[in-house]
Amino acid sequence: MSLPLVFFFGNGKAEGDPKKCDILGGKGSGLAEMTQLSIPVPPGFTISSEVCTYYYQHQYTYPSGFEKEVLKKLEQVEEVMGSFFGDPKNPLLVSVRSGSRVSMPGMMDTVLNLGLNDHTLQGLIQRTQKERFAYDSYRRFIQMYSNVVLGLDLHLFKAIEDFDLQVSDLKEMVEEYKAIVRKQLGKEFPQDPYEQLWGAIGAVFLSWNSPRAITYRKIHHIPSEWGTAVNVQAMVFGNLGNDCATGVAFTRNPSTGEKKIFGEYLINAQGEDVVAGIRTPAPLSDAPKSEGYAPHSLERMMPQAFQELISIAKRLETHFLDMQDIEFTIQKGKVWLLQTRRGKRSAHAAIHIAIDMVSENILSKKEALLRVEPIQLDQLLHPMIDPEASKEVLAKGLPASPGAATGQVVFSPDEAEEWVNQGKKVILVRMETSPEDIHGMNVASGILTARGGATSHAAVVARGMGKCCIVGCHELYIDIKNEQMAVRDRKIKLGDVITINGTTGEIYLGVVPTIKPKLDQAYYTFMSWVDEVRTIRVRANADTPHDAQVARDFGAEGIGLCRTEHMFFDLARIDAMREMILADNEKDRRKALALLLPMQKSDFVGIFKEMKGYPVTIRLLDPPLHEFLPHNNKELAELGKKIDIPFTKLKRKAKSLDEFNPMLGFRGCRLGIAYPEIYEMQVQAIMEAACEVVQEEKISLVPEIMLPIIGDVREFELLKEMVDKICKDVLEKYKTHVEYKIGTMIELPRAALTADEIAKSADFFSFGTNDLTQTTFGISRDDSAFFLPKYVAKGIYEVDPFVRLDQKGVGRLMQLAIDLGRKAHADLKIGICGEHGGEPSSIEFCYRSGLNYVSCSPYRVPLARLAAAQAVIKYGFQEK
Amino acid sequence: MSLPLVFFFGNGKAEGDPKKCDILGGKGSGLAEMTQLSIPVPPGFTISSEVCTYYYQHQYTYPSGFEKEVLKKLEQVEEVMGSFFGDPKNPLLVSVRSGSRVSMPGMMDTVLNLGLNDHTLQGLIQRTQKERFAYDSYRRFIQMYSNVVLGLDLHLFKAIEDFDLQVSDLKEMVEEYKAIVRKQLGKEFPQDPYEQLWGAIGAVFLSWNSPRAITYRKIHHIPSEWGTAVNVQAMVFGNLGNDCATGVAFTRNPSTGEKKIFGEYLINAQGEDVVAGIRTPAPLSDAPKSEGYAPHSLERMMPQAFQELISIAKRLETHFLDMQDIEFTIQKGKVWLLQTRRGKRSAHAAIHIAIDMVSENILSKKEALLRVEPIQLDQLLHPMIDPEASKEVLAKGLPASPGAATGQVVFSPDEAEEWVNQGKKVILVRMETSPEDIHGMNVASGILTARGGATSHAAVVARGMGKCCIVGCHELYIDIKNEQMAVRDRKIKLGDVITINGTTGEIYLGVVPTIKPKLDQAYYTFMSWVDEVRTIRVRANADTPHDAQVARDFGAEGIGLCRTEHMFFDLARIDAMREMILADNEKDRRKALALLLPMQKSDFVGIFKEMKGYPVTIRLLDPPLHEFLPHNNKELAELGKKIDIPFTKLKRKAKSLDEFNPMLGFRGCRLGIAYPEIYEMQVQAIMEAACEVVQEEKISLVPEIMLPIIGDVREFELLKEMVDKICKDVLEKYKTHVEYKIGTMIELPRAALTADEIAKSADFFSFGTNDLTQTTFGISRDDSAFFLPKYVAKGIYEVDPFVRLDQKGVGRLMQLAIDLGRKAHADLKIGICGEHGGEPSSIEFCYRSGLNYVSCSPYRVPLARLAAAQAVIKYGFQEK
Repeated sequence: MSLPLVFFFGNGKAEGDPKKCDILGGKGSGLAEMTQLSIPVPPGFTISSEVCTYYYQHQYTYPSGFEKEVLKKLEQVEEVMGSFFGDPKNPLLVSVRSGSRVSMPGMMDTVLNLGLNDHTLQGLIQRTQKERFAYDSYRRFIQMYSNVVLGLDLHLFKAIEDFDLQVSDLKEMVEEYKAIVRKQLGKEFPQDPYEQLWGAIGAVFLSWNSPRAITYRKIHHIPSEWGTAVNVQAMVFGNLGNDCATGVAFTRNPSTGEKKIFGEYLINAQGEDVVAGIRTPAPLSDAPKSEGYAPHSLERMMPQAFQELISIAKRLETHFLDMQDIEFTIQKGKVWLLQTRRGKRSAHAAIHIAIDMVSENILSKKEALLRVEPIQLDQLLHPMIDPEASKEVLAKGLPASPGAATGQVVFSPDEAEEWVNQGKKVILVRMETSPEDIHGMNVASGILTARGGATSHAAVVARGMGKCCIVGCHELYIDIKNEQMAVRDRKIKLGDVITINGTTGEIYLGVVPTIKPKLDQAYYTFMSWVDEVRTIRVRANADTPHDAQVARDFGAEGIGLCRTEHMFFDLARIDAMREMILADNEKDRRKALALLLPMQKSDFVGIFKEMKGYPVTIRLLDPPLHEFLPHNNKELAELGKKIDIPFTKLKRKAKSLDEFNPMLGFRGCRLGIAYPEIYEMQVQAIMEAACEVVQEEKISLVPEIMLPIIGDVREFELLKEMVDKICKDVLEKYKTHVEYKIGTMIELPRAALTADEIAKSADFFSFGTNDLTQTTFGISRDDSAFFLPKYVAKGIYEVDPFVRLDQKGVGRLMQLAIDLGRKAHADLKIGICGEHGGEPSSIEFCYRSGLNYVSCSPYRVPLARLAAAQAVIKYGFQEK
Repeated sequence: MSLPLVFFFGNGKAEGDPKKCDILGGKGSGLAEMTQLSIPVPPGFTISSEVCTYYYQHQYTYPSGFEKEVLKKLEQVEEVMGSFFGDPKNPLLVSVRSGSRVSMPGMMDTVLNLGLNDHTLQGLIQRTQKERFAYDSYRRFIQMYSNVVLGLDLHLFKAIEDFDLQVSDLKEMVEEYKAIVRKQLGKEFPQDPYEQLWGAIGAVFLSWNSPRAITYRKIHHIPSEWGTAVNVQAMVFGNLGNDCATGVAFTRNPSTGEKKIFGEYLINAQGEDVVAGIRTPAPLSDAPKSEGYAPHSLERMMPQAFQELISIAKRLETHFLDMQDIEFTIQKGKVWLLQTRRGKRSAHAAIHIAIDMVSENILSKKEALLRVEPIQLDQLLHPMIDPEASKEVLAKGLPASPGAATGQVVFSPDEAEEWVNQGKKVILVRMETSPEDIHGMNVASGILTARGGATSHAAVVARGMGKCCIVGCHELYIDIKNEQMAVRDRKIKLGDVITINGTTGEIYLGVVPTIKPKLDQAYYTFMSWVDEVRTIRVRANADTPHDAQVARDFGAEGIGLCRTEHMFFDLARIDAMREMILADNEKDRRKALALLLPMQKSDFVGIFKEMKGYPVTIRLLDPPLHEFLPHNNKELAELGKKIDIPFTKLKRKAKSLDEFNPMLGFRGCRLGIAYPEIYEMQVQAIMEAACEVVQEEKISLVPEIMLPIIGDVREFELLKEMVDKICKDVLEKYKTHVEYKIGTMIELPRAALTADEIAKSADFFSFGTNDLTQTTFGISRDDSAFFLPKYVAKGIYEVDPFVRLDQKGVGRLMQLAIDLGRKAHADLKIGICGEHGGEPSSIEFCYRSGLNYVSCSPYRVPLARLAAAQAVIKYGFQEK
């Protein structure tokens, strides 16, 4: 391993390339950049994340030369600070923090005040003239170090509200803490600062693979190979008195996007106190009372420091071209920056910030488009509490992440997981959340905490997840043990239903109706920029005229998948459908189909009218027939009476349709080939509907008829012949001309592998990546619960391949199909209509692969539009 | 379409390239070649099969210039023959026969004596001075033409044994026949010879798409695009008197391979009489009585013609380098050849002929290897009647196709099909078979006819199918109407079980035990040549020591697939297996597994000993666990008692293992990852067995451990780590060193698509083409009965892809995996262990794709060895 592996920063200079987040980690990179910008940053050094990887690959040892390098950089810090590590007179104290390539808030360990021992303590007292502060620092250090490095349970050490303690108490506690360590480990708390340092560095590396870090990485798809960097940095103190403080801030409001510094701080405190949520912090700027804050703002309390912070924030935004999330400490009136990183924000804020930064000339339009994560748009579109609905407000907390959620109350993350696995929706209620709660937060519909502020763990994580969240609802009395909570005299028990409004912070009893959110002008401006850049089309999967209308409202440019089978499940139709399925011969089947024809036709008329000439791709009947039959004897007997077939015969017929592997069975075009009359009826309904809409509405429309489960070109050709014939007959009947297209799903590996043959006679391809993923992996989605969670947990799959397109396997197959298809049919139209069509990284893949469009659920259309535009910006314009 | 489309042959000269079977058809090519060899062939011309294709593609019209060409060639025939088409004084008569690229015996139509009408009849009488013959010819012509060209039912015309008829009877019949035509069609039988000719040519083209021809093509995988050629040829007559004859012959014995002309003839008859089986023909050579023939051989009756035939046969064999199947006519003592083609033969004969022809310097060894079809070896290895078994001979017929078969008697091909679909085995009993019976013959275990000789339809077709067959069992009285038969006073009813011995011609009542056939020296000589040429290895799929022994006897060079799950189905073990499956926790699972360990180990010891160091690939547990559980409540309750688990709990547990799509569910390595203890036990059993055998037998052996259902390299790596650990432990315990390999099945598309990643850590790949075909096509084999037969019938699939490897789709995927795999791991060993590993065309594909070995069922090993050798000869030596 080649040196350097350790990078000094301080005094306006930083070694290494600050842009190299993969080496320095996010925190280290930020510190280096800030140092280079001459923003006041305590000096320190960053240990490359490569050392972490090496450490794991080499039985927890370090590369040669590494230790010497650390000591050399430490000397540089001593030089800048003018104090010395382990010097009993003038000791240098440092913090040791993790810092991986992407932020993993609260996931890994930190040690503060390192370098303190019985001797340097005296030096600290002398230098600061604050005995109480020094002992408190020592106590904190022993507690933190014992927990993080020595592995002792935090609960062994008394939790302390430090305001009430005298110096003598603290002295006693230091001795007590050292005694606890001695008792638990049979040896003294380490007094050698260098031993302390190496212990802390190792502990930070080890925390990379702590269970909670692993869980977090899984949820956020962070490769375990990345490792973490370590930042060793001279301590500055926010707890040296009332001219000291510590705080966190967003350079703009992360909920609304308002251009105003937003954050919290505590006077005379160390950084961890703010995040921990034990003391309730005060706001930075002098906000109106209506926001629920006391007027002890930094703006009023330390106006000069506040102005310095504003100025730093501006420099940071101009440099990083983005809203920043910073940590700072004020030591005797001087502002020190300890961290800067990209600030997480709500979708609403993201859009507003992006638009504002364009008008402030900070960003170009294209840059602005990259500032909003596609997945965030999803939350913008989700229902909000109907303001007209009558509702009883139970309590009010801080609105931490917008939206609305209804669910049953649970009080632990394990319960949340269990109940959700049973198909329930839950609201996770906690005193405050911690990284150990992530798995529960991940599955809950909403999160509610009694403590914490807008930058507490719950708030930050929930915003990241785009999940509705209310924090700091002090009215709540939570009784974890008895699994209930109370607001005044009102008790809410485990399983009771509540609704929370993350936009206002209100909590309601029971279910409260929601409405479609109103999208503001900023949204429409932003989306118009999206559409200027975007080159591939975005369609929606929609099966009804209503779906089609929602899709159009969200900007869908057509329907990419209209599943005709859903139309049959309607109560009024299912009997005719069942009669058709149970018929013994073609004649009886045709009789039943004749009943279905006008119903299907009217659906198509509605959809065509709604889509006003935008393309509509209609897939002919796909699922196995037994899916339409009743699944128990009672229902079967009832059906028998209704359609006048003896029960035993019905039973026999139903049984004969049973399959071992229905997913791989008698479905899709296989039905259409065995019983052509079914597809004939459907094609007739489509074309008659098209003719009528064309004649009535005087619009032009081109229905696209799509055949499912094609695996061989001859299936396609056989059915194409049938479709052409029916279309010809209908067009003659209506004495009109309507163009139509015939294409196929590519959802079986064989269709992809023989795409060259199929492309010769098909007008279009649409990748059905749900089934293509099932067949390519050989995994039935219905059965995967046995092992898929274990697979994700064991890191075999980075992520469920049904959620994110597997580019390595399924993607390779798609690319093959695209290449073969276009080679045989140069202007073949190709799209995707599996659920992946609404997942950003999959959309990016589709763009790079040369698809003409993606199709997804209506609510995902805006997201897909943005992802498609971002792909163009990231990968450049590609000729289709 | 470019001319010429019509090719003259006669007088020692033939137009066109006789090798171009695709143009001239098999018959036309043979006639042209024989003409060029100066073998006496009546002159004529062949119409290119391209005309047939054109005819179908252009609404039953001919290419321009074609008709003129036909007339010109007809004039050339007139010139050679010195007689003239339609000339009332000296008429030229012709035959019009089909002739496709490959022989389709009896499948298409033929018209003889064409050119006869009321006027030319008189000329024929004058020229031949045989009024009876001439009228008989006219009658036959009207009957045949009316049937074949005019589409009248043959039964409208009286069937006639022509010996008994006087000229006056025949004259009457001619008038009667003409009246039938007049009555049925409302018009006269065509008198214009040219109208007759065009009618016949069109009819031959149309017969290419007759239902029976389509069925035949399906069974024999002949593309419908090939079309048929038409041969128009001057008539020669075998029915001009007792110095005339007609017959068919094989140049060697097609059953035994003996170097002796073998065939049958009829004196004073037309060709069709021999094949029709109405008159029982006499043998050609003067065979001993023991063969069951009368001594009216051609050798005795017409010694000079016989010698001429022998000499022609020899010239044909030397020219075609193969045994020939010929048709001849003797007209007034002169031998005329009407057809020659490659003779179908039994496997036994094929081997003997190949070996003899090498010693006769006709063939090189490599050529000889191409003279035996791999699939034929299959019949050589199938059981024969145990000569020691006590059995009652019911009757005896002509042994037409060797082997033995037991089944229930059915009397119609439809019945045969129906019963076989119900899972029964049937012997199809018919008076004689016709092309309409093909579908029944195809499914029957054996075929028995009361009429016909060794070259009758039943005999020829059965030999082609490699199916046990007895013909001409005159003792049988078959009562089709009442679905029964009798031999003397013994009645056999529909559904009674009989056994037939195609090697001796004996028919037995009930089931008769069979034994393994003895393979003769010729077989071993032949197979030694096979192995000299062959470059890829042939292994067997074998799960027990017994299977392993059979496999070795058939020349397997290892085991390519040992399925460990079969070992669990043993009654003594299934309970322990079930206990393991039903265990609630790892501890109980391990307890049950500990019981299974010694059993599995002893199996592996047996297999390793049997294989004497040849490689053995062992696949770890593959099927879903529920396959091992009882499938009804009664059995489940019994199990509950035995293993002391309450029924309700058992039921719940069993139900929890149910899957929607077990094929795509919790199976293969997914089990091994979720319950590592199962695979750990199996690996331990394998390695302990290997260590013990190595230590006891002092042989070296390298067990190959194979992981099923791998779809991602991380699955493989995780399990490889486990395997390595267990192996290390076992080797330490035994204090010995045994090498082992770890590889994977490639049976999921994703494994193939990511083969480059997997190959990096795998020692070998084995294509599991059964599952790979299921997932690639998205077809569950268990459920495919709903549509697969329809797919084959509609020509969507040429052949069931589970029988013959789908090279286009699955093959493309395999090639991708091979290329990716070898690129990442140059000397990666790659094989196949799906059923396709025993199918000749699939083996050829495997060779061309660069596989190292194929593995198939033990009985298919010889076949696979031959197919592998033929691939080398056909495609040249390829570096592996």
